[in-house]
Amino acid sequence: MKFGDVSLGRGEMHMKASITVTLKPGVLDTQGRAVRHTLEAMDGQSIRDVRIGKYIEVEIDEENEAAATAALERMCEKLLANPVTENYKVEIQNG
Amino acid sequence: MKFGDVSLGRGEMHMKASITVTLKPGVLDTQGRAVRHTLEAMDGQSIRDVRIGKYIEVEIDEENEAAATAALERMCEKLLANPVTENYKVEIQNG
Repeated sequence: MKFGDVSLGRGEMHMKASITVTLKPGVLDTQGRAVRHTLEAMDGQSIRDVRIGKYIEVEIDEENEAAATAALERMCEKLLANPVTENYKVEIQNG
Repeated sequence: MKFGDVSLGRGEMHMKASITVTLKPGVLDTQGRAVRHTLEAMDGQSIRDVRIGKYIEVEIDEENEAAATAALERMCEKLLANPVTENYKVEIQNG
């Protein structure tokens, strides 16, 4: 997170963010396991592990990167991720 | 993709890769639209757009990064993504 480049003065900036939601280590990933078995059967590749998460792209208008990150983290906690079983990572693409 | 650092000699290397699968631009994302409406209703945030994709972490044993990338791209074409409606990006995390 960088705080520079707020050159538009007051008002809102248009930002693109990506959110990655992944299962916490130790949580059984049944979908990932099924995919791993299928990949092994298809290709004979030596796949050790597959874990499947979500990738969410959001376009948001906020005052600055810090505010956008905070808003998106709130959304993760409330809707986009299950904080009990999942981790999430918010990245602002352009400030 | 870098080709250096193949210091283990012959044999296979253990690599972690991440695959991001996203809907192509122009393809209607009904799930993303539903999430956007919910976020707007919850928070009053000025969310402009939400698009939802998949994030897949794979651990694979291959001879080098180029071989691992090729194998993973083949898996995307065949199983992990729908090449008609989705783009995918393979990234090797550690060589």
